[in-house]
Amino acid sequence: MTTQALPREPRQDRSRATRRRLLEAAIDCLASVGWAGTTVTVVAERAGVSRGAAQHHFRTREELVTAAVEYGSEVRMRRMRAHLDALADGRPSTQDVVTMLGEMYTSPLFRAALQLWVAASSDDQLKAQVLPLEARVGREAHRLTVEALGADESVPGVRETVQATLDLVRGLGLADLLTDDSVRRTRLLTQWATTLDAVLTRTPPASSPE
Amino acid sequence: MTTQALPREPRQDRSRATRRRLLEAAIDCLASVGWAGTTVTVVAERAGVSRGAAQHHFRTREELVTAAVEYGSEVRMRRMRAHLDALADGRPSTQDVVTMLGEMYTSPLFRAALQLWVAASSDDQLKAQVLPLEARVGREAHRLTVEALGADESVPGVRETVQATLDLVRGLGLADLLTDDSVRRTRLLTQWATTLDAVLTRTPPASSPE
Repeated sequence: MTTQALPREPRQDRSRATRRRLLEAAIDCLASVGWAGTTVTVVAERAGVSRGAAQHHFRTREELVTAAVEYGSEVRMRRMRAHLDALADGRPSTQDVVTMLGEMYTSPLFRAALQLWVAASSDDQLKAQVLPLEARVGREAHRLTVEALGADESVPGVRETVQATLDLVRGLGLADLLTDDSVRRTRLLTQWATTLDAVLTRTPPASSPE
Repeated sequence: MTTQALPREPRQDRSRATRRRLLEAAIDCLASVGWAGTTVTVVAERAGVSRGAAQHHFRTREELVTAAVEYGSEVRMRRMRAHLDALADGRPSTQDVVTMLGEMYTSPLFRAALQLWVAASSDDQLKAQVLPLEARVGREAHRLTVEALGADESVPGVRETVQATLDLVRGLGLADLLTDDSVRRTRLLTQWATTLDAVLTRTPPASSPE
């Protein structure tokens, strides 16, 4: 019986699957109950993983949460890239791009990342861990957005406007934290797409002559 | 001796001053050590107020923090209004307005409010307390911004663009949480002022004719 009951998955795959389950459960947990309620033990329970197995992967909450936000960001970006690649003409409308960004920054992943940022803001050790991750994710989000918009960053003002788009959706993520802000957000992003089109296709208007 | 040692301030003024000291200390405390480290006892110590006196004003951390964010927002808005009223021609430049907003949303008050929002996102009782405050402060910030920009919200797209400006600076506040983002923010807001001027003074470009 004992030998027959051996799992069919190789050990490494099982370990990877366990890790992934923990990371996904950590994102859900952070997004719903917040930093204080997200311990390795609670996440292990949520993931249906034994406490021992969980602690084999992640010794501390900080480790688990940082890995979860990293994993979640990679998954999101990969999905966004796949979505872009799948488009027939290779270029989504500006409205599509800002809608996609709006969704990304109101997802459980954003809420989880927000918990991590806020915790890191008053914990220097955690901050040192989070900063390289935040920089990497920020760069990748910027690159994807430039590509999706077909933006030419050599045109003055374009780079700053793409950055502003990402800061805007980050602000929209915050505005969605306590209430469902989707109706206002949709109206706002529709207008943003119009503004963005104007900036991306033309140089900003020069100051009027004296 | 006892009668001579009576404080010269009337009791009510002293009580008000104590309350204000607690509120200010709570904002500093939240901004620097975060939600978990901000207890009534810690804030009382920071404010140089006895624990008993502090608890006379605020029974719980939640009460203290909500009152602190409300107080801080009122002070900020009053200062912004005074600043606007003091301008000779009554109208700051767009660049001045976005700079002022950028400063408001990267201040200790923003960091304190962020702690409160994030805590409220996983605490229904606190959320019920915070929502009316958030709505009131949001409306007032919007009204002040419209007034400062001299924006005509009856023009299509203007209302959404003013809202986007506030969501953008909220996002910039978040971007400043872990690192000093001031150089990037200044560049970004300078460009945003140009874009904003274009949207505020003209209706958005109609779609090009087929």
